[in-house]
Amino acid sequence: MSDTATTPSSPDTLRARAAELDAAHASTDRRDAFLLPEGVIYLDGNSLGALSVAARDATANAVSRQWGEQLIRAWNESSWWSAPERVGDRIAELVGAPAGSVVVGDSTTVSLYKAVHSAARLRPGRSVVLTDPDSFPTDVHVTRGVCDQLGLTLELVSPGDAVARLDGSDDVALASYSQVDYRTGELWDLAAITSAAHDAGALACWDLCHSAGVVEVGLTAGGADFAVGCGYKYLSGGPGAPAFIFVAPEHIAAFTNPILGWNGHATPFAMSPEHVPADGITRARVGTPPVLGIAALEGALTAYDGLDVADVRRRSLSLTAFFVECLDGLGIDLPVVTPRDESRGSQVSLRHPDAYAVVQALIARGVIGDFREPDIVRLGFAPLYLSHADVLAAAVHLRDVVDGREFERAEFATRAAVT
Amino acid sequence: MSDTATTPSSPDTLRARAAELDAAHASTDRRDAFLLPEGVIYLDGNSLGALSVAARDATANAVSRQWGEQLIRAWNESSWWSAPERVGDRIAELVGAPAGSVVVGDSTTVSLYKAVHSAARLRPGRSVVLTDPDSFPTDVHVTRGVCDQLGLTLELVSPGDAVARLDGSDDVALASYSQVDYRTGELWDLAAITSAAHDAGALACWDLCHSAGVVEVGLTAGGADFAVGCGYKYLSGGPGAPAFIFVAPEHIAAFTNPILGWNGHATPFAMSPEHVPADGITRARVGTPPVLGIAALEGALTAYDGLDVADVRRRSLSLTAFFVECLDGLGIDLPVVTPRDESRGSQVSLRHPDAYAVVQALIARGVIGDFREPDIVRLGFAPLYLSHADVLAAAVHLRDVVDGREFERAEFATRAAVT
Repeated sequence: MSDTATTPSSPDTLRARAAELDAAHASTDRRDAFLLPEGVIYLDGNSLGALSVAARDATANAVSRQWGEQLIRAWNESSWWSAPERVGDRIAELVGAPAGSVVVGDSTTVSLYKAVHSAARLRPGRSVVLTDPDSFPTDVHVTRGVCDQLGLTLELVSPGDAVARLDGSDDVALASYSQVDYRTGELWDLAAITSAAHDAGALACWDLCHSAGVVEVGLTAGGADFAVGCGYKYLSGGPGAPAFIFVAPEHIAAFTNPILGWNGHATPFAMSPEHVPADGITRARVGTPPVLGIAALEGALTAYDGLDVADVRRRSLSLTAFFVECLDGLGIDLPVVTPRDESRGSQVSLRHPDAYAVVQALIARGVIGDFREPDIVRLGFAPLYLSHADVLAAAVHLRDVVDGREFERAEFATRAAVT
Repeated sequence: MSDTATTPSSPDTLRARAAELDAAHASTDRRDAFLLPEGVIYLDGNSLGALSVAARDATANAVSRQWGEQLIRAWNESSWWSAPERVGDRIAELVGAPAGSVVVGDSTTVSLYKAVHSAARLRPGRSVVLTDPDSFPTDVHVTRGVCDQLGLTLELVSPGDAVARLDGSDDVALASYSQVDYRTGELWDLAAITSAAHDAGALACWDLCHSAGVVEVGLTAGGADFAVGCGYKYLSGGPGAPAFIFVAPEHIAAFTNPILGWNGHATPFAMSPEHVPADGITRARVGTPPVLGIAALEGALTAYDGLDVADVRRRSLSLTAFFVECLDGLGIDLPVVTPRDESRGSQVSLRHPDAYAVVQALIARGVIGDFREPDIVRLGFAPLYLSHADVLAAAVHLRDVVDGREFERAEFATRAAVT
């Protein structure tokens, strides 16, 4: 990963290297846009992105000025009605999709339900939907549920085996995968799997929860048919932020929403009992959008204003590479689950038999990461608000937790309700 | 409705009567809890309830303190994870349901999809779902969509004819109705229709969007099987607030969520690929809950603290009765669509051939109501923050708009994007 990777480095050497890298990536430093508490190194932006000034202010404005003063008039005066498409367009830029192909609202799970339910029906006569057995569980659950409803067969195939499974097949309707593995951080080849799906006459749906905002997703370039993603991870839209759904322009006319709501109607205020789907991506809407959540997300996305995702990706790769460099340099001997080459998202996952307690001990030191079953210390590096100096500081804390066996303290063993 | 109803009254007489009624209903006056702008009489709380101090503060706290400072730890430290059930329990009290039978999250449309999809499958062998052709369109759309997916027949039967349709039938799986008609304000007999459904071996699902918070809904007393309702109307939870779903305790074990997400799982953090539904109403959850929206709703619901819904209902009936009394007393000769007896929710709908322009002219005077196709002036009377004095003032404005033919001004004819 680096020419210093296998040689222990002095903290001073690493500190100098951090400063050099931070200078090299200064153009993508958006730390000032965020409101992180003092004393915290936040390595969980892949689970809940940090609060930004703009997200805070946008929410306060939506509450006090728009809702409080404009009241019902805000649907027009503050353009609430078109917010799902407006914010969708902003996200489209970040994931390499054209305007008019992304809309926000609903949770990620509901969005995936809509995408998979519609996509699988676009290939009648084909009986198989592929997904990753190691996907974040909601993906497996919702996809299996759709298969059961549509009389299809869910086949669990690792993304690493998907191209081989698709090759020469004629039974697959849909391949539904995450671009980045939530646990290991592995980045899968969206274009290659999509291309294999297309060659086999199937469609491809992508979950971008762990890639949107940090990876050059390239939906159009990769030929993706459908995608969904989360608003509250790297996009920093706030807890339970609305998710997004992407439908490739060539499929929009054939997209049939399984949940027929008035917001997806061509003329919602005509109050017609016949459902006529709206033109365009609007047909993927369902009910009244979560306006406050969208406001927070829209504010948060301004952190990307003036940035090129390619530069953010470079910063992300540099941060994660430098973390591994620090592990090596500081002699932290934990197995790195995440690929050391560039086929990774913006996280580094480590194995430790007491991973839960290690994470708790880190949190007690102000280094917030998370634990994933069964033995994963998962550290996310949200590039916009983390520096290489933060990365080094986190690595030093990790060394002290591991070398000092802090994780053995009784206080770190008790599991919280939500881990 | 009142012994003064057909005799024109002087404004002074009506003013004295308003003061007398406001004194009689002082115990349910929560005006101080809300932040209505100066000069506005807000008669659209049935579309978007007003902002309360508590909702504003709860949202700011959720953003700045919980999200901003606790970050990911807020899932435990601020009990975000259990918020859907906690807020559900508070709503349960307002709609006459037991603790553990209501959960919030998702939009009303998604909630109705879950309820109807599950309910209709609880009566296998029966092929018909009844709903109201005049329901709010999303109800008809989503119910028809579910029927198409399940191979059932949607039969459009007015709630006024539902008991007769059900009598002696054996083909109905589910009767799905709104308790209050969104357009006319008519209150339907939840207990009678539910009882007729049960006598016919069917289930009943209720949409409480226009009754929760203002009517003694009586889900348990009426024997309702399923229900959904909106958080942003009379409950004042904010724009696009999360909706709620009720599943009667006797059906919870048989409730199968059509959208299988990790939040409805028995052990969500075990990350198991097998979906094992949670015990209890939690199985009606889907994805990560919209925390900011739930925070606003939870704050808003504190406006009901210390109030009995029966008293709120009495205030609501008094406000709407007094409005009709004012119409009569001031000689405003518009047809009243809403029942003059007590079979009404908390609104009064009037007909006028230029209804859209009448509403715009009222808004220009600070009296905010809304228009519903084709010719309805719909005025909602959110009881917690409206007084009888407001009602009289609104009626005087309406008289001036109608008698002065203000609605004929060109500026009031142009339709906004969202009406």
